[in-house]
Amino acid sequence: MNNSAVKIGVIGLGPRAETLLATLRSLPQDECQVTAICDLNTERIEKICNIFKANSLVVPAAYTDYKKLIADPEVQAVLIPTSWNSHLAIAADVMKAGKYAAIEVGGAASLDELWQLVHNSENFGGKCMMLENCCYGRNELMVLNMVRQGLLGEIVHCSCGYEHDIAYELVDENGCTSERAIHNLKRNGDLYPTHGLGPIAKILNINNGNRFLSISSFASKSCGFKSYAQKVNSPVTDFAIGDVITSVIKCANGETITLTHGISLPRPYSRDCRVQGTNGIWLEDADGIFINGISETKTEIDVAGNPYYSHVWDKTEKFYEKYDHPIWQEFRNNPTGGHGGMDTLALRAFFESVRKGTTPPIDVYDCAAWMAVTCLSEQSIALGGIPVAFPDFTNGKWIYAKDDSDF
Amino acid sequence: MNNSAVKIGVIGLGPRAETLLATLRSLPQDECQVTAICDLNTERIEKICNIFKANSLVVPAAYTDYKKLIADPEVQAVLIPTSWNSHLAIAADVMKAGKYAAIEVGGAASLDELWQLVHNSENFGGKCMMLENCCYGRNELMVLNMVRQGLLGEIVHCSCGYEHDIAYELVDENGCTSERAIHNLKRNGDLYPTHGLGPIAKILNINNGNRFLSISSFASKSCGFKSYAQKVNSPVTDFAIGDVITSVIKCANGETITLTHGISLPRPYSRDCRVQGTNGIWLEDADGIFINGISETKTEIDVAGNPYYSHVWDKTEKFYEKYDHPIWQEFRNNPTGGHGGMDTLALRAFFESVRKGTTPPIDVYDCAAWMAVTCLSEQSIALGGIPVAFPDFTNGKWIYAKDDSDF
Repeated sequence: MNNSAVKIGVIGLGPRAETLLATLRSLPQDECQVTAICDLNTERIEKICNIFKANSLVVPAAYTDYKKLIADPEVQAVLIPTSWNSHLAIAADVMKAGKYAAIEVGGAASLDELWQLVHNSENFGGKCMMLENCCYGRNELMVLNMVRQGLLGEIVHCSCGYEHDIAYELVDENGCTSERAIHNLKRNGDLYPTHGLGPIAKILNINNGNRFLSISSFASKSCGFKSYAQKVNSPVTDFAIGDVITSVIKCANGETITLTHGISLPRPYSRDCRVQGTNGIWLEDADGIFINGISETKTEIDVAGNPYYSHVWDKTEKFYEKYDHPIWQEFRNNPTGGHGGMDTLALRAFFESVRKGTTPPIDVYDCAAWMAVTCLSEQSIALGGIPVAFPDFTNGKWIYAKDDSDF
Repeated sequence: MNNSAVKIGVIGLGPRAETLLATLRSLPQDECQVTAICDLNTERIEKICNIFKANSLVVPAAYTDYKKLIADPEVQAVLIPTSWNSHLAIAADVMKAGKYAAIEVGGAASLDELWQLVHNSENFGGKCMMLENCCYGRNELMVLNMVRQGLLGEIVHCSCGYEHDIAYELVDENGCTSERAIHNLKRNGDLYPTHGLGPIAKILNINNGNRFLSISSFASKSCGFKSYAQKVNSPVTDFAIGDVITSVIKCANGETITLTHGISLPRPYSRDCRVQGTNGIWLEDADGIFINGISETKTEIDVAGNPYYSHVWDKTEKFYEKYDHPIWQEFRNNPTGGHGGMDTLALRAFFESVRKGTTPPIDVYDCAAWMAVTCLSEQSIALGGIPVAFPDFTNGKWIYAKDDSDF
């Protein structure tokens, strides 16, 4: 074991932890070592310990009290793949201990839990990163790279979202049992904003010279889960969440962002990405990029004999060779780990911050701004779609802040 | 000349009239005969008369006062491809004369001009159709047909828009001279909503058991026209209109509609159509349709060994053979006329209504609801994005109304 390996504790040993640990095992051994694990459920602890044994790895210390794991002097940094209702409070406790925390994606229940996270980080020196793997998606990073090089011109509008039919995961013949299902049963808002919004926030320099100002949210009627429940003879019927939640965010620098959430209707997966500027556009659903001066513009003739112009999409992959982000130029030959390698890149960025003692590339202010979308969208929907304001979690620091990370 | 030919007057002889007349010439002669034309500008009248002569057609009566054209006893129906500021007032006068009017697409400046149109139609018996050619688009009609057959399940969310880079038409070295350019210079809202919204309104049965309740609109910053103006050394700089206008409409039956307008940025054309229900989705930008039970769902395995499902788009064209709307099943072998044949179909539907004395398939209430989007979106943007209410132009008739047209 190399001295540079980051010593990790993992709190919460559910399915997401299994995926994360599988990714950790695929990394070189000098990246990290899991020295402690924690769950309220001892069966889960046993299951995870058995995975370590089966892979001939040192079995970590086991805790059922997460505060003891945080206090463990061996533990430098904590991964927190726990439930949506607990991970922010646990991360706030890690901040208080002055250590590094990595939280999983999700949204906040209230602005208060985000302020606590921010205050504890500012007051006690702990640092927080959201493991938003989609920020490390190949297309997202390539487009960020192209935007930084000015190829798309001045950016004026973006869209993003999370559209993923997971009704089969949330509803079955026993009703709703998973935490995520119960949140969807009780809440009406964008419950899962960061896969789409994280990469767009980075592209728009949110908290680094720009910020989210307001959000307006709208819910369609709720039919998808009910329809699926009928098919599988599930006793659940009425979900609070609309099938498609649409939000529009206004930014300080004048950009608009359209954000969509939909997990109950059958359709192909999409993160709905669109990044549009004065010189070009990336549109995920068209699998296309158009850049003025690079992509083709055809001249055609209408029925009255007048010419008109017609722009033609280039395939996204056409730009990989030349414009892949430096992270992917290195990684593309051997992408390993969960979610097409994105998990690996997010974890590596976290470990590097811990090793160097630097602020992670997705920091506590990013966590707060992105996760605020969930409770703010609930409020806007409850109020009939009026815009509600984002707090400035940086207390003005965004105006001068400059991101010196890969983003 | 067959007796069934509808006798038409055309008011407004600009570029759109030339395209319309080209389409009319491509129709069989028993469909219609242009017996009168009108413009304030006599040079335009002369130009159009010369086109008639060049095509060996009877030259129509010419007027400079549109009220005289309306009063001409030969004229059964009036096409009004005039400016956005005048066509609703002229159509209201046609209503007053108890004749048929066909207006071009566009948006309203105020709710009042729409109420006048509605009241005149109700009080004096004239009938109005909007020549919204996109309602006759092959894909739009096919999806309507599929929705009516229940293939997409219960519809919960749609999107639509008009995204067309026409900066080169609106800005040149002389500045802004066209009417459309000047509207974009002075107004901030969705100035051109109906190409996207018309077909979606038909699919959602707006004014026939459903209606638009409210709209919330948001404008991105305005950089596109300015950037183009700099390129072509145009003296114009600051346009009022945001480059991308995003609106969300809520419907009485619980559906949401996202509507986008963007005409100043370089990108491929799109009407942004999306129609999504509990059993499937059409997404124009993906050129794809997914129908549960017809399209493919693959089972894949993640890094931790767990299965997940992945839905696969079918190409839109795969459904033409079986699901083309009856109108297109007949038309598809020989689509003639402007805009890929859509102009022909819209005009034919209008002529058929005149011939039979029936209500046109896109009627005065549709015109009012669709065109209200423009002034309401301006209001919402001016008020910071709060929802503003649609009036019920039917005064309650939408609750019981049933559309017996092709839609």
